Amino acid sequence: MQKKIKRTSKFFKKASKKAGMSPGILVHVGEQKIETARISMMSYDPARLEEKELNYIEDSFAYRDTPPVSWINIDGLHEVEMIEKIGTHFGIHPLTQEDIVNTGQRPKVEDFEDYIYLVLKMLKFDETSGHIVSEQVSLILGPHYLISFQETQGDVFNSVRERIRKGRVHIRKSGPDYLAYALIDAVVDHYFLILEKMGERIEHFEEQLHVRPTPEILQAIYDLKREMIYFRKQVWPMREVLNTWQKAESALVQEANTVFIRDVYDHTIQVIDTIESFRDIISGMMDLYLSTVSNKMNEVMKVLTIMATIFIPLTFVAGIYGMNFKYMPELEWKWSYPVLWMVLIVIFVGMVFYFKHKKWL
Amino acid sequence: MQKKIKRTSKFFKKASKKAGMSPGILVHVGEQKIETARISMMSYDPARLEEKELNYIEDSFAYRDTPPVSWINIDGLHEVEMIEKIGTHFGIHPLTQEDIVNTGQRPKVEDFEDYIYLVLKMLKFDETSGHIVSEQVSLILGPHYLISFQETQGDVFNSVRERIRKGRVHIRKSGPDYLAYALIDAVVDHYFLILEKMGERIEHFEEQLHVRPTPEILQAIYDLKREMIYFRKQVWPMREVLNTWQKAESALVQEANTVFIRDVYDHTIQVIDTIESFRDIISGMMDLYLSTVSNKMNEVMKVLTIMATIFIPLTFVAGIYGMNFKYMPELEWKWSYPVLWMVLIVIFVGMVFYFKHKKWL
Amino acid sequence: MQKKIKRTSKFFKKASKKAGMSPGILVHVGEQKIETARISMMSYDPARLEEKELNYIEDSFAYRDTPPVSWINIDGLHEVEMIEKIGTHFGIHPLTQEDIVNTGQRPKVEDFEDYIYLVLKMLKFDETSGHIVSEQVSLILGPHYLISFQETQGDVFNSVRERIRKGRVHIRKSGPDYLAYALIDAVVDHYFLILEKMGERIEHFEEQLHVRPTPEILQAIYDLKREMIYFRKQVWPMREVLNTWQKAESALVQEANTVFIRDVYDHTIQVIDTIESFRDIISGMMDLYLSTVSNKMNEVMKVLTIMATIFIPLTFVAGIYGMNFKYMPELEWKWSYPVLWMVLIVIFVGMVFYFKHKKWL
Amino acid sequence: MQKKIKRTSKFFKKASKKAGMSPGILVHVGEQKIETARISMMSYDPARLEEKELNYIEDSFAYRDTPPVSWINIDGLHEVEMIEKIGTHFGIHPLTQEDIVNTGQRPKVEDFEDYIYLVLKMLKFDETSGHIVSEQVSLILGPHYLISFQETQGDVFNSVRERIRKGRVHIRKSGPDYLAYALIDAVVDHYFLILEKMGERIEHFEEQLHVRPTPEILQAIYDLKREMIYFRKQVWPMREVLNTWQKAESALVQEANTVFIRDVYDHTIQVIDTIESFRDIISGMMDLYLSTVSNKMNEVMKVLTIMATIFIPLTFVAGIYGMNFKYMPELEWKWSYPVLWMVLIVIFVGMVFYFKHKKWL
Amino acid sequence: MQKKIKRTSKFFKKASKKAGMSPGILVHVGEQKIETARISMMSYDPARLEEKELNYIEDSFAYRDTPPVSWINIDGLHEVEMIEKIGTHFGIHPLTQEDIVNTGQRPKVEDFEDYIYLVLKMLKFDETSGHIVSEQVSLILGPHYLISFQETQGDVFNSVRERIRKGRVHIRKSGPDYLAYALIDAVVDHYFLILEKMGERIEHFEEQLHVRPTPEILQAIYDLKREMIYFRKQVWPMREVLNTWQKAESALVQEANTVFIRDVYDHTIQVIDTIESFRDIISGMMDLYLSTVSNKMNEVMKVLTIMATIFIPLTFVAGIYGMNFKYMPELEWKWSYPVLWMVLIVIFVGMVFYFKHKKWL
Repeated sequence: MQKKIKRTSKFFKKASKKAGMSPGILVHVGEQKIETARISMMSYDPARLEEKELNYIEDSFAYRDTPPVSWINIDGLHEVEMIEKIGTHFGIHPLTQEDIVNTGQRPKVEDFEDYIYLVLKMLKFDETSGHIVSEQVSLILGPHYLISFQETQGDVFNSVRERIRKGRVHIRKSGPDYLAYALIDAVVDHYFLILEKMGERIEHFEEQLHVRPTPEILQAIYDLKREMIYFRKQVWPMREVLNTWQKAESALVQEANTVFIRDVYDHTIQVIDTIESFRDIISGMMDLYLSTVSNKMNEVMKVLTIMATIFIPLTFVAGIYGMNFKYMPELEWKWSYPVLWMVLIVIFVGMVFYFKHKKWL
Repeated sequence: MQKKIKRTSKFFKKASKKAGMSPGILVHVGEQKIETARISMMSYDPARLEEKELNYIEDSFAYRDTPPVSWINIDGLHEVEMIEKIGTHFGIHPLTQEDIVNTGQRPKVEDFEDYIYLVLKMLKFDETSGHIVSEQVSLILGPHYLISFQETQGDVFNSVRERIRKGRVHIRKSGPDYLAYALIDAVVDHYFLILEKMGERIEHFEEQLHVRPTPEILQAIYDLKREMIYFRKQVWPMREVLNTWQKAESALVQEANTVFIRDVYDHTIQVIDTIESFRDIISGMMDLYLSTVSNKMNEVMKVLTIMATIFIPLTFVAGIYGMNFKYMPELEWKWSYPVLWMVLIVIFVGMVFYFKHKKWL
Repeated sequence: MQKKIKRTSKFFKKASKKAGMSPGILVHVGEQKIETARISMMSYDPARLEEKELNYIEDSFAYRDTPPVSWINIDGLHEVEMIEKIGTHFGIHPLTQEDIVNTGQRPKVEDFEDYIYLVLKMLKFDETSGHIVSEQVSLILGPHYLISFQETQGDVFNSVRERIRKGRVHIRKSGPDYLAYALIDAVVDHYFLILEKMGERIEHFEEQLHVRPTPEILQAIYDLKREMIYFRKQVWPMREVLNTWQKAESALVQEANTVFIRDVYDHTIQVIDTIESFRDIISGMMDLYLSTVSNKMNEVMKVLTIMATIFIPLTFVAGIYGMNFKYMPELEWKWSYPVLWMVLIVIFVGMVFYFKHKKWL
Repeated sequence: MQKKIKRTSKFFKKASKKAGMSPGILVHVGEQKIETARISMMSYDPARLEEKELNYIEDSFAYRDTPPVSWINIDGLHEVEMIEKIGTHFGIHPLTQEDIVNTGQRPKVEDFEDYIYLVLKMLKFDETSGHIVSEQVSLILGPHYLISFQETQGDVFNSVRERIRKGRVHIRKSGPDYLAYALIDAVVDHYFLILEKMGERIEHFEEQLHVRPTPEILQAIYDLKREMIYFRKQVWPMREVLNTWQKAESALVQEANTVFIRDVYDHTIQVIDTIESFRDIISGMMDLYLSTVSNKMNEVMKVLTIMATIFIPLTFVAGIYGMNFKYMPELEWKWSYPVLWMVLIVIFVGMVFYFKHKKWL
Repeated sequence: MQKKIKRTSKFFKKASKKAGMSPGILVHVGEQKIETARISMMSYDPARLEEKELNYIEDSFAYRDTPPVSWINIDGLHEVEMIEKIGTHFGIHPLTQEDIVNTGQRPKVEDFEDYIYLVLKMLKFDETSGHIVSEQVSLILGPHYLISFQETQGDVFNSVRERIRKGRVHIRKSGPDYLAYALIDAVVDHYFLILEKMGERIEHFEEQLHVRPTPEILQAIYDLKREMIYFRKQVWPMREVLNTWQKAESALVQEANTVFIRDVYDHTIQVIDTIESFRDIISGMMDLYLSTVSNKMNEVMKVLTIMATIFIPLTFVAGIYGMNFKYMPELEWKWSYPVLWMVLIVIFVGMVFYFKHKKWL
């Protein structure tokens, strides 16, 4: 039951806890997925890299104005006091603070002049249940810092960390806007993995449909359709987010980096296109299933009809000569029995030809 | 019957009473839901709060020009003379007055320079009937006052009243436009509760569909679909309303507060997104139902076909030897009967294998 | 047959009569619905009202330039010479003249600087046939006059006439553009009546569907769908018409009156919204019908299957012991018959339990 | 087979002949529908009309710069050298020349400053096959001339010729842009004839569906749907063409004539609206057919079930007393036979009441 | 299995290889379709043509700034070092380089001032499998050069090579932008060939549907629908690409050549239109199939019902007189047997008339 309820509630987060409260009052809406929040920090320029885990959020405050780039990553959103402290120090609008801890946001980008606020959805495909699981990622992009908030400790950003560590040229030379791009890119790249999984399921079901269409397959296709609807709902707003960001005229985003945003925008469009195509295919599969079931029923009906139509008249004939009338001349005749067999065989063969003619055999 | 009729008439209010009348003639269109209209008032600034119930609407007139904020709330729309008095004193356009008392408005925002007129729909989900019930809320936003009109006394605005009473910082320091935002936010927050209820129903029906698809479930899904159509019709225009308001360049709305309007706009979009997703899911459920019924029929047909196909030939054979011909050599043979049983068993086993082969067993 | 043909031909008027003719040649396209055209006139200012029936159109010509407002209403469009005379005197473009008499126009608004030309569709719901009947209304809005053309004498404009006669304030004080608004408003108000009728039908059919889904109900739902398609086609362009008019910058429309146009625009949107909702509901009804029929068939099949599956094996057993073999030991035994009954009952009870288990009983 | 292939190939012209060739190389793509191309010419001003058939295209060259209007009409597109000569003399862009002879163009308008190039589709409804046949019409509108290209000699433009001959006022006084309008208007007027034919078919099929739904009707509805898709594809771009032309700011189109273009634009919109409505209706017909077939099957099943359910138990009872057991006490009793009949009748009547109760009878 | 997987994976390229990598790191994503990359070059002006195969990409570098036109064509994308060398020498942005070797791009156009980057999809219809196969083509358009990248050696561009070789006027006189147009035109022309093949399949299936609707046909229609979805996904973005290019204000595209781009844009629109029409037709075919199957089942059921309904009562009657009651007066009567036959015949004829009446026979 518990598991079931999550299937529609994941489409939006319950606001009951919050309903009617003043905006700006921080309440963590969503499931607590991690024990204690974890703060990690990377500060770098082309030459230098400083990486550490922090116990107190206050330790990061010094990096606010330190050029060129400091990336503060926070895993776990339930320690709202910490978020409030960050908000106060970095000058984050109360509404933004509220959005960070309320995991039911729609992906969006908001330009607050001092910083840009981005909400994304990191998606994972849980193979066991066949469900897509969503996690909210918030990014605060300031002049010299980028703060990222995740619901739980994930491995999606590890590739970006590796790149920073390896001292590769571009990311170490670029500002926090490029870092933001790199994180978004990592998130969007993960969407392709889900597409891949979905595609495999589609193909598996198509094959099953061909071989043996069972009600379980139907249910599974329906579940897949639901997940696709959910997937679409999560990714669709990204299109607008990236488009808005691309066109944003903000001092926080360097002109030269818009080409990268355009690139990730193109990826998002491609994900959306593929989702739409998959939706069409799944919808076609349900039609195919229905038609296949009709076909099978047709086949069943034919067998019944052929058997019944052939044997019912024969049984009738046998029944006639099972009657006990005193005066039935045929009963006395010597050749009655073989003649009757001839008649029965003629009826039988006639029926078979009739069905052959109708192409039912 | 009475209850049924309400199901489509709620999509629009009957204009028959009003058809052809001059605009600006106030006629209360809708159900009278409350005995006598109730007037309550809150006037506040950061330091002070004055709260009272009024017997006569004239008592509120003094507050029109008193800074900073006076909130006049009227429950019950059938006392049109009162609305007219308000209209005259506060300088409300006759068309606006008419719209207030006609509860069949579409959500909209209209900027009359002296005031902004907003119409919203407050929605409730009646658990017993499974219907969504709509109530019209009108807001008149002036320079120093906000007048709100409800059809009946509700509890949705109580949370806002509480916040004002508690002397929380922001709402007491802000103007009537922020108060308007707070009310709208309370209304939109309630939409999420309906989504939650709808989601629970969907899950319940999905489970039922899986366990035992009955015609009652089908009817219930159809009813849910209808309510979803109604829900969508009520919420969809809010998108435009809030977008218009957000972009309005009015002296009555402070620049700094547009960020809050954008926030409630985002919530509305999310409600709409979820409604669309739910519509898709419900539509998929109807397909699933149809396919499941087809499946069940298929299964029924198979049982019939198997039974009939096996026993019809056997019965025929038995019928043959029930005939009373005088000359039937088999009847006299000693081993006829056991041989016949062998034949019958061979036919039976052959049939079973045939159906196994066809995967019908 | 005659009546049937009208069902699609009403979607557009046959242009065969006119095909290839020069524009500006007036030919009345449509059914002649009235014997002789009828001309009525109202000329008024706040103080004065002159109302009369005219025998000759020429009698109205003097009012062209008489301020403030003269309303000339013409019922019947087949007297094309009269239209031509009006056209010449009031300076109406030949194409406009042609459009007035060709009742197959799409609702539109055209600004010819000297006058504004509006085409509307007045709709009525014929209870007997269940069809929506459309009548074309043309309005010519000049600086001091308004000319309205109807196909037949109707009662929709009576309410407006009453208001003028009663000397109500606003309409008597306003110009011809307000009069035009009042007429359009009367037309659009009538759409709500049709929605009401449609809504009643929907509810009636829903109830019928629940109680007893017959092919007649299906046909009636289909017919309703058709009428809804027709309704939509007629009303949809009104959205654009009113939007265009609202935004028109014409000396003929006073700034202060745009608020009224916006009001009727809002009503139109609401009609369209409701039509869309009804379309969704009707479409759901057809699905419901189909599913219900499948359900019923399923039930029928179950009865057949249960009966056949239970009795076919029993009959077979009876057939066995109806055979006439000389050597059938069972026939001689004393307890054969009661034992056989026991066997039959066991089979019967087993079958019943099997079907109980399958939830078919 | 040949006829069948035309059904999809008509959606686009095979480009295989041309694939990879340089643009500007004229190749006639399409069916040659006429033996030799035919050139006719009309040159007129309000006072004068010169009309003749030309043997050589060169004879028309003198009229290029002769005011006011010369209309050169060419039937047959396969003589590409002729088109090339015209192109050279009148200064037609190679791409335009190519488009003229390639009959697979989409309706479009192109402004080449020296001339405007228009492509239209003239449609005919072939009653015998029930197919819509399309013919491409190209118009070259120059300052003093209009050249029209048709695939074959048609009668659609005859009405325009008649008007020119009769010396009617407007067309003889207007320039070549008005002539172009008159030709387009004639083409669009023809679309209404097709709508009329389609409407008749729809009504015929609706009636048939009601009386006796056969697979042939289904096939015919499907074919009609296809033709509607084709119709829509041909007409839809006309909307854009006329809209573009209407807004074109070209010295070749007189300001005063845009009102006529708007008129034909309105007609096109109406055709498109009606096509959309028809599509909805046809789609509803297919649903209706499916539901009707399900209904009929239901009825068939009921008959079978009633008969089988009544007689199978009766036959079983008769079978019991046809058994040959030695010790069956009932067989000896005197009243067994009449009592059995009573039992059979009771069973029979009980069954009938049961089915009455179930409303199957 | 391997072949199956390709059916959904072709909708997007697996990014797993690349996920999380820094942009600008070249990794060939896609299948390696060719052994070694092949470089061919054509350099020409109206008078001169130089054509050769290159072994080393460095040999082409000299042509970068040589007016007027050099076309470098590279078949095979797996030699990423070569792409990097080109990138460095010609000043290609790292993201562009990455896009060239990642064959999962969506068609797009990007203006990098120094060059324009175009991605297209070259499509082929594999007759054996019935699948559409896609190949990515990238074009780099510089001031004096055009570099084209293909996945494998194809024959689509041969027609353009032929035209250049033949010294035809236009292409030899034009710049690299015209060459780019010529290549795109060749690609788009190929889309028509696919439409042709698809159209043939549609017609074949329609005919089959009419003659004998089998589950194989249904599967084939479903597969066709899938390919159509894929086709649409590949071609749809071309609309935007060409529209953007057409409106691009770049020094690299000559004003005079936009007319050619518009031409290929029109072709693309026509392809898209036809795809949409085909989709509608295919969707109609699935409905037709379902209805046809229902029809066939109806027919089967009728045969069964007729046979069973006629013979079941007859068999019952025969069963009655097969009973062994001692006291059955009819058994002794002389005329019982012939009378019984009369009764049976009357029942039989009555049934036949009943079914005739019901139009089942």
